[in-house]
Amino acid sequence: MANENNNAEEVVEDLRDEISEQAQALVNDLEHGDKEAFLDGFADLHGYDRGQFYLNLPSQLRQQVIDWLTPSEMAEVFDEMPVDDDTKPDELLKEMSPQYAAEMLDQMYTDNSVDMLEELSGHDLRMYLSLMPEQDAKSIRELLNYDDETAGSLMSHDYIAISENDTIPEAMQAVKVAAKEAEQITYIYVLNADEKLVGVVSLRSLMLADDSLELKDIMDTNLIAVGPDEDQEEVAHIMADYNFSSLPVVENDKLLGIIMVDDIVDVIGDEATEDYSRLAGVDVESGDDNPLKAAFKRLPWLIGLIFLGMGTASVIDGFNGLVATAPILAVFISLITGTAGNAGTQSLAVAVRKLAFKSTTNVWKMLLNEILIGCVIGIVAGLTIFTVVTVWKHNVLLGLAVGLAMGIAILVANVAGAFIPLIMDAIHVDPAVASGPFISTLSDLTSVLIYFNIAGLFIHLFGAI
Amino acid sequence: MANENNNAEEVVEDLRDEISEQAQALVNDLEHGDKEAFLDGFADLHGYDRGQFYLNLPSQLRQQVIDWLTPSEMAEVFDEMPVDDDTKPDELLKEMSPQYAAEMLDQMYTDNSVDMLEELSGHDLRMYLSLMPEQDAKSIRELLNYDDETAGSLMSHDYIAISENDTIPEAMQAVKVAAKEAEQITYIYVLNADEKLVGVVSLRSLMLADDSLELKDIMDTNLIAVGPDEDQEEVAHIMADYNFSSLPVVENDKLLGIIMVDDIVDVIGDEATEDYSRLAGVDVESGDDNPLKAAFKRLPWLIGLIFLGMGTASVIDGFNGLVATAPILAVFISLITGTAGNAGTQSLAVAVRKLAFKSTTNVWKMLLNEILIGCVIGIVAGLTIFTVVTVWKHNVLLGLAVGLAMGIAILVANVAGAFIPLIMDAIHVDPAVASGPFISTLSDLTSVLIYFNIAGLFIHLFGAI
Repeated sequence: MANENNNAEEVVEDLRDEISEQAQALVNDLEHGDKEAFLDGFADLHGYDRGQFYLNLPSQLRQQVIDWLTPSEMAEVFDEMPVDDDTKPDELLKEMSPQYAAEMLDQMYTDNSVDMLEELSGHDLRMYLSLMPEQDAKSIRELLNYDDETAGSLMSHDYIAISENDTIPEAMQAVKVAAKEAEQITYIYVLNADEKLVGVVSLRSLMLADDSLELKDIMDTNLIAVGPDEDQEEVAHIMADYNFSSLPVVENDKLLGIIMVDDIVDVIGDEATEDYSRLAGVDVESGDDNPLKAAFKRLPWLIGLIFLGMGTASVIDGFNGLVATAPILAVFISLITGTAGNAGTQSLAVAVRKLAFKSTTNVWKMLLNEILIGCVIGIVAGLTIFTVVTVWKHNVLLGLAVGLAMGIAILVANVAGAFIPLIMDAIHVDPAVASGPFISTLSDLTSVLIYFNIAGLFIHLFGAI
Repeated sequence: MANENNNAEEVVEDLRDEISEQAQALVNDLEHGDKEAFLDGFADLHGYDRGQFYLNLPSQLRQQVIDWLTPSEMAEVFDEMPVDDDTKPDELLKEMSPQYAAEMLDQMYTDNSVDMLEELSGHDLRMYLSLMPEQDAKSIRELLNYDDETAGSLMSHDYIAISENDTIPEAMQAVKVAAKEAEQITYIYVLNADEKLVGVVSLRSLMLADDSLELKDIMDTNLIAVGPDEDQEEVAHIMADYNFSSLPVVENDKLLGIIMVDDIVDVIGDEATEDYSRLAGVDVESGDDNPLKAAFKRLPWLIGLIFLGMGTASVIDGFNGLVATAPILAVFISLITGTAGNAGTQSLAVAVRKLAFKSTTNVWKMLLNEILIGCVIGIVAGLTIFTVVTVWKHNVLLGLAVGLAMGIAILVANVAGAFIPLIMDAIHVDPAVASGPFISTLSDLTSVLIYFNIAGLFIHLFGAI
């Protein structure tokens, strides 16, 4: 009895409060073998909740669910399950018989089954595909060929496509038949005799149209479509701007598949998290609650940057004599490196976001802009610090040296912040090194070089500072 | 002639390449007063492109468009126009006669007209509302009452709601009628005799249902809805998780309105950009191409942080004697402040993102976790730097001092990075100061305090370092 309660409590821990009671009842049904009560209650849950409930179950109770649900019912559960680090698709599939798993994967919407299959080993992938009807396996193999984060990898084959010569009632009937299977019925894609995509009709305009018309009379021929290799971020921008609920993917005018807005919602979230994580130099979505594991995920970045920071330390070490002569110089090291690092982080963030909207960005103009911005910021910040230091230390020379160093260090950091992601992008390297911590650590190095060289020059010119 | 071309070029500059030719032709039509050609070509554009084209026109050409389009046609243009800093709703409306503007606002989807009206002065707002039919003005006034960034501010009144006792054919007929007006027809909301929301039917299941049934036989009663005061980020999570294309907003079981997935796509983008901007200490979406303006937007942060950095400088100044005795200490200032700043930025980013998912976050557990992570990272980084310094400078005491300072500085920065956004959140202050640059500048201060105190202690204990 105690064990039963524990089970239920563990299962409901991560679920929405609203369904925790239902979930507890369902766990009890599973444990008491009450199939009818379980199936009733389970059917009442929303797809997403069904998926979360199933994921949270201990393995032996999932076994019971597998026994009770048909592969096609299970497909509905898996269709609503996010595929990420927390879900382990290979383990979930291994809990089923290969035949059951293959049939379930076959019944899922193709974009979702492809997402799961991508996580499997080559051996398992081939096994499941070999157990599916040849036509379906072929369709999935095609989708598996597209690179991650492209339109092709997001698209689904579950759309409605009808001939342009169909009449409105024929089209309406076809929609009714397809509604049982298709992932979306808001848009109906219209093909000509050569099977080429020539237009699109919304279900709304189909419902409002006169029965005597043909599809080609009411279809919208001004199509917006993307190629299968289009970057998913670009796809997301198009769908967000145009408020489309689905977008066709075409190649040589042939309809390859459609992308649904709910997949785009996930893309927008994922891309934003990726940019955010990069800026902070830490994977904010790792979801690791174990402090030791979390620490060891953050450490590689930090340790790597410590070695870059050692470069800065040896530069200062090289100016040892200067610091011994004028210990006052040590006072402004962190002020100059810190401010330049902050300015570099700002320009990095702006550059990264502008590069994400490539179509409208002239990179050289962007770089020139950052140089001008760096000049303005450098002059203002330099004058500020000149004034503060001169007043504080009653020493104009020191004020000049620190202010000048600050201004130049900011300019350099600003340009580096914009230039580094730009180069990374140009040579098609994922700009992982273009992170906030990297830029500020790198700018520490350039800043102290600038600072001590200027200070050295001043001492050489004026004999003291 | 030269002037004409200039006009067209300026208009098409920001538009998609695909429509630049169409846009140039449309500008020519406007300039030559060719109404028919313009209306034909304009109708061929997608809603979003129409909005962008209109925004890019010079004011005198917009005047021509206003003359040629009915308020209801213009409403379609404005429905697809994003309301942000670049669009100036008040100026756009001022270009129309008050009657025309009021009728257009009335014809727009309510959530969109509310977004525009919110940007107006109280005087203009009252004027436009007074020119609308009383019932519509009341509906808009209700929506204007909801706080920004809540479910209420996102919702629209343009939904389909039908009685639970309607039959399937009656419901189908009602959907057809409503399809001309409603913002979405994918879900039909079902009300009981008391006008309370009791269920939802998808258009898909309505199309598949037997004609002899009533709505209440096929409706889904397991509704997920939100209250009007729900935070928009929470609404976005629900819609993203459940893949809903619209979500009802209810109060006391009464349906107040619906939220559409395309508004949520914008919310997800906006919230992500907000977090990103904050982490970098710069508004990355300001879209300012004027370097001077862009510089002056970034400067307040930087100058503010320079004064915080002056605090760090005066701490180092206070240890002037120490640096004069052991100039080698200056070598490691930027290494320690930089590394602690990086660690603090990491823990800040993780904390901010975790707080965004409040429902599943135990803040005390989170803080304890960051303390433990800080200890692990501090120990590993401290040992690394101890080894490097000891080997480099053949000086175990110096290695110990620097390593120990590094370890403790990291621990403090880690805890500050998690604690500051947490406090801001608890006292309901928008955590603007919880930015990456602020945390790293603050941790500069704590780091040098820790470093020089430890170094001073070592020199006191061992006579030298």
